[in-house]
Amino acid sequence: MEKISVLGSTGSIGRNVLQVVEKLSHRFEIVGLAAGENWELFQKQVEKFKPQIVSLLRKEDAQRIQHWWKGSPMRVSFGPEGPEEVARFEENDVVVSAITGINGLRSTLAAVETGKKVALANKESMVVGGALIQQAARDSGAHIIPVDSEHSGIFQCLAHEKREYVKKVILTASGGPFFHTPFQKLKEKTLEETLQHPRWSMGEKVTIDSATMMNKGLELLEAAWLFGLQPEQLDVLIHPQSVVHSLVEMRDGSILAQLSSPDMKIPIQYALTYPDREKMWLPSLRLSQIKSLEFYDADVQKFPLLGLAQHALKEGGSVPVALNAANEIIVDFFRKRRIKFIQISPLVKEIVEKHPKRKVESFKDIFKIDREVREEARNLIEKRF
Amino acid sequence: MEKISVLGSTGSIGRNVLQVVEKLSHRFEIVGLAAGENWELFQKQVEKFKPQIVSLLRKEDAQRIQHWWKGSPMRVSFGPEGPEEVARFEENDVVVSAITGINGLRSTLAAVETGKKVALANKESMVVGGALIQQAARDSGAHIIPVDSEHSGIFQCLAHEKREYVKKVILTASGGPFFHTPFQKLKEKTLEETLQHPRWSMGEKVTIDSATMMNKGLELLEAAWLFGLQPEQLDVLIHPQSVVHSLVEMRDGSILAQLSSPDMKIPIQYALTYPDREKMWLPSLRLSQIKSLEFYDADVQKFPLLGLAQHALKEGGSVPVALNAANEIIVDFFRKRRIKFIQISPLVKEIVEKHPKRKVESFKDIFKIDREVREEARNLIEKRF
Repeated sequence: MEKISVLGSTGSIGRNVLQVVEKLSHRFEIVGLAAGENWELFQKQVEKFKPQIVSLLRKEDAQRIQHWWKGSPMRVSFGPEGPEEVARFEENDVVVSAITGINGLRSTLAAVETGKKVALANKESMVVGGALIQQAARDSGAHIIPVDSEHSGIFQCLAHEKREYVKKVILTASGGPFFHTPFQKLKEKTLEETLQHPRWSMGEKVTIDSATMMNKGLELLEAAWLFGLQPEQLDVLIHPQSVVHSLVEMRDGSILAQLSSPDMKIPIQYALTYPDREKMWLPSLRLSQIKSLEFYDADVQKFPLLGLAQHALKEGGSVPVALNAANEIIVDFFRKRRIKFIQISPLVKEIVEKHPKRKVESFKDIFKIDREVREEARNLIEKRF
Repeated sequence: MEKISVLGSTGSIGRNVLQVVEKLSHRFEIVGLAAGENWELFQKQVEKFKPQIVSLLRKEDAQRIQHWWKGSPMRVSFGPEGPEEVARFEENDVVVSAITGINGLRSTLAAVETGKKVALANKESMVVGGALIQQAARDSGAHIIPVDSEHSGIFQCLAHEKREYVKKVILTASGGPFFHTPFQKLKEKTLEETLQHPRWSMGEKVTIDSATMMNKGLELLEAAWLFGLQPEQLDVLIHPQSVVHSLVEMRDGSILAQLSSPDMKIPIQYALTYPDREKMWLPSLRLSQIKSLEFYDADVQKFPLLGLAQHALKEGGSVPVALNAANEIIVDFFRKRRIKFIQISPLVKEIVEKHPKRKVESFKDIFKIDREVREEARNLIEKRF
């Protein structure tokens, strides 16, 4: 049996991971679960999977769990270091890193440092600390398998191709809920409308990032680090059907592409079973039912955060850290209804453009810059709104 | 330098091969050329590539070449055994087998027996003698790389995937010139209209086979033998844009696909350079310019030869041999305007259904059955038209 720990088990990815593990119970077993504040769901997960180590954000929730499972040998941890403990649990064969945002960075690093297989759903680790995470993986021998559907697709297409053969890697984007909305109408868009993604059922943060196309921008940065690609090798295509997840153009004119139904369980299962492919219980994708797959160039005028991410990709250094921090804070204010949808992009842009680029040489640097930018973003909002 | 011989150098594939070799003259050199009766073009090819061995169908053409290149050490051969001599030429590193129809079988076998790399464009070899050709390749250590765009696509997608992971292999078909023609209107279609393929520029025989969808049927049989697939693992999808050449559905819900501009130079170059990928001079495929890729189920009522080929695939033995022989003769009568387009399918079907299935244990068996069925087909036409 392969032993799995899931960091972020009550989130959208985490819940899908547990479904896949249940279906593949002949080869997988959950040994660790880490979650935030969703006590109710977590308790059900613990009851079902009986992990050996768990972690929750709040001390009182951890104590509740401990009380509830009195007499069991389950290790219970809490606080921001909790997920790291689960990540380092010696029984792990695979760690699924699925905590959203920069909060997932420390535990991703912890998982990578153990040298185990890491199924990476937390894209921010690669966005802000790609070079350092990859160095840690080289040092420990950890194998990082992407969980994002686009990156899983690239991983599968690139599998055995030499990097020098790759001309371009194209990530597709559904275009989000506002692909058909004219720019002028974006200012009317509410939080509720932003959370109605046409194709993918995902967490709130990533759904909002999808509406601004920041999600695709972060994915470009993630892909650059995951696959060792140059900025000019990366591109985005709008593909509203979300069936083709990515395309790899070889220098000889061939393009390899990966397709599947837009269901996260497919890339999750691939990441868990890699290098095997296990039978999937979901129905096959039928192209003759979908009939038409459309492709459009991305509109960087309408979605300036995509352009900003491409800028950050070229700049490197602390710019991607600033981009991610500014976006996390600004999106948070949008979720709290302090600002409107249309204000997200210009605010993030303003903060990133003000940010003086620095070198990033350690995780300490990342956290320092991250804190500073968050502080600035908060101040800017408090002053202005 | 890698030394290449081209069997069928004046045909559509052969001409494309020579263009690719010219562009990649830093690594490839032509050492052998075999052609049929197109003396004029062949003479230009010989002048340009200065091969060490050549072959033509007619003795008088061979003598002309010999006279013309008097004093050169070029070996000149002729007759039906000519291509075999070129195929066995000891200097060859790669043999491109691109003679159309069952005429290409002997020279394909000769190439495979040398244990060299064989770029296979002659699909009939695999259709009628797949088991025997694959056995010869195992014995000699020859590496067979498909040249057909669909099979090149499958080859690329399957490259490093275990066969047990493959659920389905889907070949796309443009639908040919009559995809939009209602069945009732097919009876009006002339030879000229049949030869107007909407996407691919190919030889006459394969263009006609494209219009009846027999071409896709032959490709299914070829794919089964090339990749060791079961009949139920193979399927066809109509894709009028001819950009996605094939799709491989894995058992875990992922589909890998290969795309490129519909230009034979792309799969030809891949076959020649495999396992490398060399830079291609043609412009990149731009999906946002094509905008929409469509997919439809194939209509076996309208194109009964596709269904007949699927039947032959399941039956095996001598049935694929009969199918190919009947089709070659009937298409030949169509090219000579003895029969109409609409008559091709029912005539081929009638002959194949009358054919008593036998075992095929040797190339002798194949040629015997092939001769018999051709004879029957000719008699049937002579009697009836």
